[in-house]
Amino acid sequence: MPDPDRAAPRLTLVLGGARSGKSRYAEGLIEALPGPWLYVATAQAWDDEMRARIDAHRARRPPPWETVDAPRDLPAMIGRAPAGRPVLVDCLTLWLTNAMLDDDADLAAEVEALVGSCRAAAGPLVLVSNEVGFGIVPENALARRFRDEAGRLHQCLAAIADRVVLVVAGLPMTLKGDT
Amino acid sequence: MPDPDRAAPRLTLVLGGARSGKSRYAEGLIEALPGPWLYVATAQAWDDEMRARIDAHRARRPPPWETVDAPRDLPAMIGRAPAGRPVLVDCLTLWLTNAMLDDDADLAAEVEALVGSCRAAAGPLVLVSNEVGFGIVPENALARRFRDEAGRLHQCLAAIADRVVLVVAGLPMTLKGDT
Amino acid sequence: MPDPDRAAPRLTLVLGGARSGKSRYAEGLIEALPGPWLYVATAQAWDDEMRARIDAHRARRPPPWETVDAPRDLPAMIGRAPAGRPVLVDCLTLWLTNAMLDDDADLAAEVEALVGSCRAAAGPLVLVSNEVGFGIVPENALARRFRDEAGRLHQCLAAIADRVVLVVAGLPMTLKGDT
Repeated sequence: MPDPDRAAPRLTLVLGGARSGKSRYAEGLIEALPGPWLYVATAQAWDDEMRARIDAHRARRPPPWETVDAPRDLPAMIGRAPAGRPVLVDCLTLWLTNAMLDDDADLAAEVEALVGSCRAAAGPLVLVSNEVGFGIVPENALARRFRDEAGRLHQCLAAIADRVVLVVAGLPMTLKGDT
Repeated sequence: MPDPDRAAPRLTLVLGGARSGKSRYAEGLIEALPGPWLYVATAQAWDDEMRARIDAHRARRPPPWETVDAPRDLPAMIGRAPAGRPVLVDCLTLWLTNAMLDDDADLAAEVEALVGSCRAAAGPLVLVSNEVGFGIVPENALARRFRDEAGRLHQCLAAIADRVVLVVAGLPMTLKGDT
Repeated sequence: MPDPDRAAPRLTLVLGGARSGKSRYAEGLIEALPGPWLYVATAQAWDDEMRARIDAHRARRPPPWETVDAPRDLPAMIGRAPAGRPVLVDCLTLWLTNAMLDDDADLAAEVEALVGSCRAAAGPLVLVSNEVGFGIVPENALARRFRDEAGRLHQCLAAIADRVVLVVAGLPMTLKGDT
């Protein structure tokens, strides 16, 4: 249980595997704070499978959640959030995928802009991302590159975060900060 | 070391990666309790590689272990265990695979029955399962679906378990309950 | 912060996923000790991608680091290290890959020799390796075998190590020993 007299961490990184319950856990962190809450969705509906996942996620978020989409310009969206407004970004993995699939994108510049916007955010800001580096080296070169980019991004964000949590089977393991 | 004066947890979930030592760790939890012990094997020998793994596991379990097979009807087997008899189920991953490969199965109903049997079990009951969600999104659709089903099952069971442990390199990390 | 009055652990195993920051973390453990330090590189430059990774790693290690290569005869290299000299082996995953790709190798004997050399080492010795067992079962038989061998090797080494750490997003989780 969060201590209501203790200030919420400014920046939290929630990592987890597929179907680990990381989104639900992150929503719980935000919902423990006074609303309204801003949900920044990064999914792009490339196909029906992805569309079904987006819909299932949205159905969990009635008001006082407000949902905005930022599949590409996530740094600007984070920069525009009003001070003191709890913000949940779900998830960085999809944003990174979208950026990597955009041939016109300068990926390094976008990642730098994202880290900069997180560093500058007033918070409370909670970032959700998939930990994808614990398997065998993928045969697919794009998958290998994605894995590298995701790992580096997580390291950068973990270094500036006040709290980092790894979610396994819905249960949090605190890597940094107070539980 | 377990405290002999403390009651054994009723329901324990042991998660781990491939060759993580999760089975051996789970066996140790059971063997710290008075025997005889019931080993519920869920493997189906589809091929020689799987047969070799089954045999290697069996060779580690002389009496007072009693081994029964429940590749499909695991909920009924859990329900039949005598009260107070320590039971080890190894592993849920294979049971889930068997259910998914059975075209006649109602997977949602089977999963619900399994969770129900675990909730109702007198215990001590130790469940072993593979954590499979920390890699890149699989290209194979069945693998993606399996990963989702396994993740959801782990979340359900972790929520009702008294103790949840993640095993890495043979070493336990306690996610829930006492160490 | 390491306590300067406390002896460094003789044998440390640092596990982590791809781009988890495990190498940097392990280097930090060594650099907290009096130099010079010995870096034992196990990479073999099979292709340009691997060569780029080797170069990036080397660029982080000016003197007082001394770098030697041991892509195959790692046990002998560990055995030759002067007593009290801090040694970093990065990484076991590549050494195991090299051994598995060598058709003339007796893998079981080589693994046994490696574990023996680590057990006999005066230390401080820090071993870095990839945790690769948390994904879906690979379709590739060699990848499955590699995953099994890596998992077994990690279990053996974790059992004899004084300290075992899992690195996630650059942050250490201590599995064994003091933080």
